[in-house]
Amino acid sequence: MEEPGTALLSDLRAALGAEAVLTDPDVTAAYARDEMPLAPSGKPLAVVLPADVAGVRAVVRCCSAAGVPIVPRGAGSGISGGANAIEGCVVLVTTKLDRIVEIDADNRLAVVEPGVVNLKLREAVAEHGLFYAPDPSSFDWCTIGGNLATNAGGLCCVKYGVTADSVLGLDVVLADGSLLTTGRRTVKGVAGYDLTKLFVGSEGTLGVITRATLALRPLPHAPGTLVAAFGSSRDAGAAVSGVVRAGLVPSLMEIMDATTIDAVQRHLNTDLGAGTEGGTLLLCQSDVGGEAATAELAAIAKVCEAAGAELVHATDDFAEGELLMKARRSVHYAISAYGATMTDDVCVPRTRIAELIEGCERISAEAGLKIAVCGHAGDGNMHPTVVYDAAVESEFGRAKRAFDAILELGLSLGGTITGEHGVGKFKQEWLERELGPIGLDVHRRLKKALDPGNLFNPGSMFSLD
Amino acid sequence: MEEPGTALLSDLRAALGAEAVLTDPDVTAAYARDEMPLAPSGKPLAVVLPADVAGVRAVVRCCSAAGVPIVPRGAGSGISGGANAIEGCVVLVTTKLDRIVEIDADNRLAVVEPGVVNLKLREAVAEHGLFYAPDPSSFDWCTIGGNLATNAGGLCCVKYGVTADSVLGLDVVLADGSLLTTGRRTVKGVAGYDLTKLFVGSEGTLGVITRATLALRPLPHAPGTLVAAFGSSRDAGAAVSGVVRAGLVPSLMEIMDATTIDAVQRHLNTDLGAGTEGGTLLLCQSDVGGEAATAELAAIAKVCEAAGAELVHATDDFAEGELLMKARRSVHYAISAYGATMTDDVCVPRTRIAELIEGCERISAEAGLKIAVCGHAGDGNMHPTVVYDAAVESEFGRAKRAFDAILELGLSLGGTITGEHGVGKFKQEWLERELGPIGLDVHRRLKKALDPGNLFNPGSMFSLD
Repeated sequence: MEEPGTALLSDLRAALGAEAVLTDPDVTAAYARDEMPLAPSGKPLAVVLPADVAGVRAVVRCCSAAGVPIVPRGAGSGISGGANAIEGCVVLVTTKLDRIVEIDADNRLAVVEPGVVNLKLREAVAEHGLFYAPDPSSFDWCTIGGNLATNAGGLCCVKYGVTADSVLGLDVVLADGSLLTTGRRTVKGVAGYDLTKLFVGSEGTLGVITRATLALRPLPHAPGTLVAAFGSSRDAGAAVSGVVRAGLVPSLMEIMDATTIDAVQRHLNTDLGAGTEGGTLLLCQSDVGGEAATAELAAIAKVCEAAGAELVHATDDFAEGELLMKARRSVHYAISAYGATMTDDVCVPRTRIAELIEGCERISAEAGLKIAVCGHAGDGNMHPTVVYDAAVESEFGRAKRAFDAILELGLSLGGTITGEHGVGKFKQEWLERELGPIGLDVHRRLKKALDPGNLFNPGSMFSLD
Repeated sequence: MEEPGTALLSDLRAALGAEAVLTDPDVTAAYARDEMPLAPSGKPLAVVLPADVAGVRAVVRCCSAAGVPIVPRGAGSGISGGANAIEGCVVLVTTKLDRIVEIDADNRLAVVEPGVVNLKLREAVAEHGLFYAPDPSSFDWCTIGGNLATNAGGLCCVKYGVTADSVLGLDVVLADGSLLTTGRRTVKGVAGYDLTKLFVGSEGTLGVITRATLALRPLPHAPGTLVAAFGSSRDAGAAVSGVVRAGLVPSLMEIMDATTIDAVQRHLNTDLGAGTEGGTLLLCQSDVGGEAATAELAAIAKVCEAAGAELVHATDDFAEGELLMKARRSVHYAISAYGATMTDDVCVPRTRIAELIEGCERISAEAGLKIAVCGHAGDGNMHPTVVYDAAVESEFGRAKRAFDAILELGLSLGGTITGEHGVGKFKQEWLERELGPIGLDVHRRLKKALDPGNLFNPGSMFSLD
């Protein structure tokens, strides 16, 4: 009898050429996981790298006929296991579809293939004085396809929204291999259901995105930066609420708790000037330029002072601002120096940030584990990170319980279990809980309607029964 | 034998109380149509006015059991026939669900029922220094529920987007009477598919929205206004492209062609100062306040002059600006004075506006009918209005052919057949054409997945076969 999948492999090689179909386990292993080490992954039957939409359609048709699931994947920078392989699946990598097809500066839009790296698009449109806003932390290596699949966020969201807010239309290969075009090239349009937004954030469970029309914005000015130090997370939280209440819209507003500050100070061997031990830092930027930026930062400074800031420093010097931003950007590495980490992604109403940080302190004390909290204060999307010793068996369970307690806390504060990282193969039970039985049932009905054979990323996000 | 529907009527009366179930044909006729006179409508079996979500669910359960279709409806300000009754249906009016449930100023959100009038919400949140952006022309009488169902636009869209861009979450009664909650109260969130955006703009074909959580913005400043007169639509179009290319984001940018200007001047008995006959007016506003607004309007003025404007006038006087806006707001009434009208709603890439206006001149000459073009230049959403004499039988056919030729032209310019009015019971064939067979098939599959009995607004937007 033939090995299972032999016929499929031969079909895939015929369609794509042998060099685009990888089966060597040492090679395919590199495509079997994303950046979330805790999510399960299986061994793929093959990894395929089609170079155009015809190739993607051929892969979908072949796998559909063979009843072999497809896991679509970009660069693999995801942190929810959404791109992790399923045992015996075909991993469909979209990185070879990497053309910037068009930049239409006069209509402020770009047409791109999914394999284009976020940074490459940002640089290309900047040459036209334009700005592609979504900026996930992995912007220098993640792909637009992955950004679309996860509806990626970033530091820009407080002012410019998430990936979905910059998408006008998509080409998507459906489970039967047909090519759906959604949306439009115009700024507005209400012809039919909003299929574009249905596919954005569907984490590869409904189809494979092969092209996207993206909305661009005028390139903002180099930002001015403000840092404010508070004696407590409560004061910092009050400042965040105050900024929102005052109608201010900074282009960035990040928060770092005492544990995070301590880690960053050790990592960078510097003093962030956070003042009192147990203090909290708020980092804000304004990109409106010139006097308007100075005025915006001055207004934010005033709010911070009224909320009890111990120190406020604003600068319109871009280089100095970048140094301050370096502290924020190094958080992940600084905390990783302590041990293994589990990074949460709860998003709470902006007024509840202080409660979330205080709750994390309580959970940390109960678990006997370090929890560092930082996040996008401007939109309430917080990333508490639980640190544990992977070599001590009991610590993993304790860390996971702390991680879950943070999600529980986030929901109890009126929040969501994922602000920007997604559900993937890691938070399915939590999604079920957040959606409730009716919401879950609607998800299943939509999935069955568009992917009746459960071809795409089955079991990711939610299961069909 | 019982009259068809007698049992249903008795069930509805038992559920809602007799006074909330209208069957007198003279009364129900008032609920059988929206503001689009050309779309077909039938005679409803009954019009029901539930006062709460329990009432809505009861109506849905009763009608579902009886196999009688439901047409959901707000104030009836729509202009695509989407809320028009189907013969023998139950019209479900949501205007009695009219509570502003909550205004959370610190989190910049409001929770409202669908029957809240747009203006009432705008006024209520303004008291908190906040702004609900979407402003369809009928804002003083249309309801939020209708705005959500049609994904309504307005003059604000160039800067603040459409209704969908201000929605965080919904409660929706599904075809089986269950209550689905979508979205969240947080700014960001990627837990599951974006069901919220799927229901927004679905024109009452997927469920009945009974509650919405809406995102608010800081209240902008009173706008400064600029008017520019051009000798041709081509020059005005070049100015629009120039504004976009310069990275300027006015809070309003409207265009009026020569036929529109002439109609408004007659209607208001005034001179709009459009200069040369055959001229085109551009109207822009900036709501950033103070010197920044003055600077923004000055930059727009510069672009207009470079594009060949014959006259540019800017004012930071709010009252003077309102006078200028009055000309734009009276367009509908001014054109209606000429005769019966068919108003189109094509949206084209912003660089193609001049071609659209010129094309309308050609179509007007060919049809021998007046066509006045005005619209939201800032987002390319144009409203060419075909004028005809309803008393002359042959003119209707000619007008409809001109109307269709404009849609054809819009599509050929890379546009869409509806920028903000919707498809309803008037543009189904055009939707089919814009979507193509694969897009249409996906629409049908989604509709069947969520409304397997075709209970909600059957045949509106598209038919199931």
